[in-house]
Amino acid sequence: MAKINSISGFPEFLPNDQIIFNKTLELIKNYFEKSGFMPLDTPAVERITTLTAKGIESHEIYGIYRLAGNEGDNKKDLALRFDLTVPLARYVAQHYDKLIFPYRRYHIAPVWRGERAQAGRYRQFYQCDIDVIGDGELSIIHDAELPVIIFQIFKALNIGKFTIRINNRNILRGLLFSLNLESGEIIKEVLRIIDKIEKISTNNFKSELIKLGLSEKKIEFLLEFINKKLSNSEWINYLKTPKVNEEFSKGVDELEQVIGYMRILGIEEEYFAIDPTIARGLDYYTGTIYETRLEEYPELGSICSGGRYANLAENFTNKELPGVGLSIGISRLIPKLIEVGILENKVSTVAPVIITTQNQNRIKGYLEIASLLRTADIYTEIYLQPKNLAAQMKYAGKKGFLLAVIADELELDENRVVIRNLLTGIQVSTSKSNLVENIKNMLKEMQVKN
Amino acid sequence: MAKINSISGFPEFLPNDQIIFNKTLELIKNYFEKSGFMPLDTPAVERITTLTAKGIESHEIYGIYRLAGNEGDNKKDLALRFDLTVPLARYVAQHYDKLIFPYRRYHIAPVWRGERAQAGRYRQFYQCDIDVIGDGELSIIHDAELPVIIFQIFKALNIGKFTIRINNRNILRGLLFSLNLESGEIIKEVLRIIDKIEKISTNNFKSELIKLGLSEKKIEFLLEFINKKLSNSEWINYLKTPKVNEEFSKGVDELEQVIGYMRILGIEEEYFAIDPTIARGLDYYTGTIYETRLEEYPELGSICSGGRYANLAENFTNKELPGVGLSIGISRLIPKLIEVGILENKVSTVAPVIITTQNQNRIKGYLEIASLLRTADIYTEIYLQPKNLAAQMKYAGKKGFLLAVIADELELDENRVVIRNLLTGIQVSTSKSNLVENIKNMLKEMQVKN
Repeated sequence: MAKINSISGFPEFLPNDQIIFNKTLELIKNYFEKSGFMPLDTPAVERITTLTAKGIESHEIYGIYRLAGNEGDNKKDLALRFDLTVPLARYVAQHYDKLIFPYRRYHIAPVWRGERAQAGRYRQFYQCDIDVIGDGELSIIHDAELPVIIFQIFKALNIGKFTIRINNRNILRGLLFSLNLESGEIIKEVLRIIDKIEKISTNNFKSELIKLGLSEKKIEFLLEFINKKLSNSEWINYLKTPKVNEEFSKGVDELEQVIGYMRILGIEEEYFAIDPTIARGLDYYTGTIYETRLEEYPELGSICSGGRYANLAENFTNKELPGVGLSIGISRLIPKLIEVGILENKVSTVAPVIITTQNQNRIKGYLEIASLLRTADIYTEIYLQPKNLAAQMKYAGKKGFLLAVIADELELDENRVVIRNLLTGIQVSTSKSNLVENIKNMLKEMQVKN
Repeated sequence: MAKINSISGFPEFLPNDQIIFNKTLELIKNYFEKSGFMPLDTPAVERITTLTAKGIESHEIYGIYRLAGNEGDNKKDLALRFDLTVPLARYVAQHYDKLIFPYRRYHIAPVWRGERAQAGRYRQFYQCDIDVIGDGELSIIHDAELPVIIFQIFKALNIGKFTIRINNRNILRGLLFSLNLESGEIIKEVLRIIDKIEKISTNNFKSELIKLGLSEKKIEFLLEFINKKLSNSEWINYLKTPKVNEEFSKGVDELEQVIGYMRILGIEEEYFAIDPTIARGLDYYTGTIYETRLEEYPELGSICSGGRYANLAENFTNKELPGVGLSIGISRLIPKLIEVGILENKVSTVAPVIITTQNQNRIKGYLEIASLLRTADIYTEIYLQPKNLAAQMKYAGKKGFLLAVIADELELDENRVVIRNLLTGIQVSTSKSNLVENIKNMLKEMQVKN
């Protein structure tokens, strides 16, 4: 007999948590589609040359090979995707002629990373990505459209106070140019250090920058800038005053526009914040950048990040394809929300109604009731094991049904049933012809209260 | 620049076909849930020892390894699942104590097979599985519940005439015992040959059985049995007459019961047929077996197969877990239905409404309209590139929107907009305060016609 034990880094849910997880993905999907984003689903597998085109470190990639293959399957050929952005770039480049731009897609799917297994780090996890890609150009208003959708989703999920933090790479870059840091390598390093400012002490921050050759004065200037506590409007005013250089001004101008559009699109002021400390390590981003924090659970880090990029698919095509995208890291977020009780599902059923079967000889009658309810779109399970009513009610309680339909022989003969409210224990008797309507009304009332 | 070409056996859709594919999966999911089945999602990856526990041929399995791993990742350890049944068996055995039985789950997800690539054979494809697992016992009524759900799904998909063919392994086995074929190996071989009777000539059928040592007389008997053309009721009568042996009678009795319950649950008689030629090669099945044919596209083979098994997880646990399951092979079915025009989606949008933006200086006004519609749950895209109206209408036509909202400066000043029906070209002018209601009414009317 094969031994079973969990594979670390490849988590799975029990039914009740799976139901929550799916409901959450469903809600996210609906908000993506409501703004006109289309579904995309690419194979889990890409060519290794595709995945490593951007110089990604290959030790994070899972290659695939046939266990006992001996024809045609080169072990150096195929691998599992480690994110949804490289597949998007490959897809857009490959199907460029058949896509309509701006191309708006969302993609909700697992990705795989050959990480060393450790707590909270998954080797398979879901990403929820949303991007708009332009052909040669892309209006900056899309930079506002995406965080607004994220705002709506997190509000609807009712996950407590969150902040979408927003910045612009050009501001940071302009600032660093103004400090005479002109080498791309050094700027990348400084951005990396700024990005982790919340995780390290001020002294460490300073000493890391000194190692890069920055003067004390320049470091103080940076620190003052980064540590300011200002409202969104104060930030814009503060940033507009100094004419640092063209790049800086471009960044400030873009940021001001994006924030203006976010307000028009209805995002509430307290849910977004200009934050010059976010830099997003990847040099992939070229304009707006985002990170999102759950204020009560800072240990989760950013639960939704992304930004504007000048060229999605430069490794695959000569076309210039600017875009902007955001990605929700759902696999860490949802278990955390379940753990702290924000997302809660005590039921192990997607159907609210169970039909009990007291008399196995009258199974025809019970099956007819099941057909009746299902035809009326009432999600219904029917209990079919030959057990007594007490055992069936115990099963109903454990799974968390809201209503039980109960009928003995006499009731079936009279075309009547009893409906028991499983939360209150109150029972009502009804004719079969009124059953659907009664159940619909009772469910409506109960689910509002739930 | 990395070259891109498709990887054979790993297909992907363009947006309009992806929209159809997702809609179809959504419909299937809803019917599964309507009968009280719960979602399951296991990781794509299982231990190789788990996947090969039943002696599956390993050349079909894709192992995974870290491209540049040097710690802890044994290349002989992990692999991609090749079906959803082995993960189900592992899951139920592993979480046995936390599951509530009968355990009803559905699982819609991709599987991977290291096949030699060839036309119509995929190396990644989706399965839609539905199973009920009992703890020690499982009512035979579930054998009727599953094909009824499949019937409802295929009727709702409007895919033309299909037949759910049903048989019972005990009938076939009893018959073969009665021919004094008692060795399990020979019976397995005979079942395999019966299973492919539609693909081979009668002469080949005979000669293959002769090779196994069957007499001409026995073969004629089998052929007569298999080639009978009877209605469902005639079959039951015919099968009930001879008292072949206990196993045969058990099979006939089960078949009669299952068919009786299917009728009560509302499956129409013309959509299912007793068919003694289906044998399902796998010796995994122990009772009811199903196959489903699209009558107009027999070349697709069975699009939905499954059956009853005595013990789901015997390789992983000592518990006896009988079950019954069905699996829809969606990855071959949907492209075929698209190809022949049964499933059709000429649109590349999930949103029916587009807001055009004639005057970039008045973008605030257009964004407010977008917010208005989205808040009212009207799926809406807003066109944001600085192009003239003609270009925007061309975009709207290509993507297949139903309604376009159009407003120039004057109209925005007066809080009015024009709604253009993109199918008829007819335009109506409306105040902003009536916009939501008007659009809802127009969509209702258009989508009924669509």
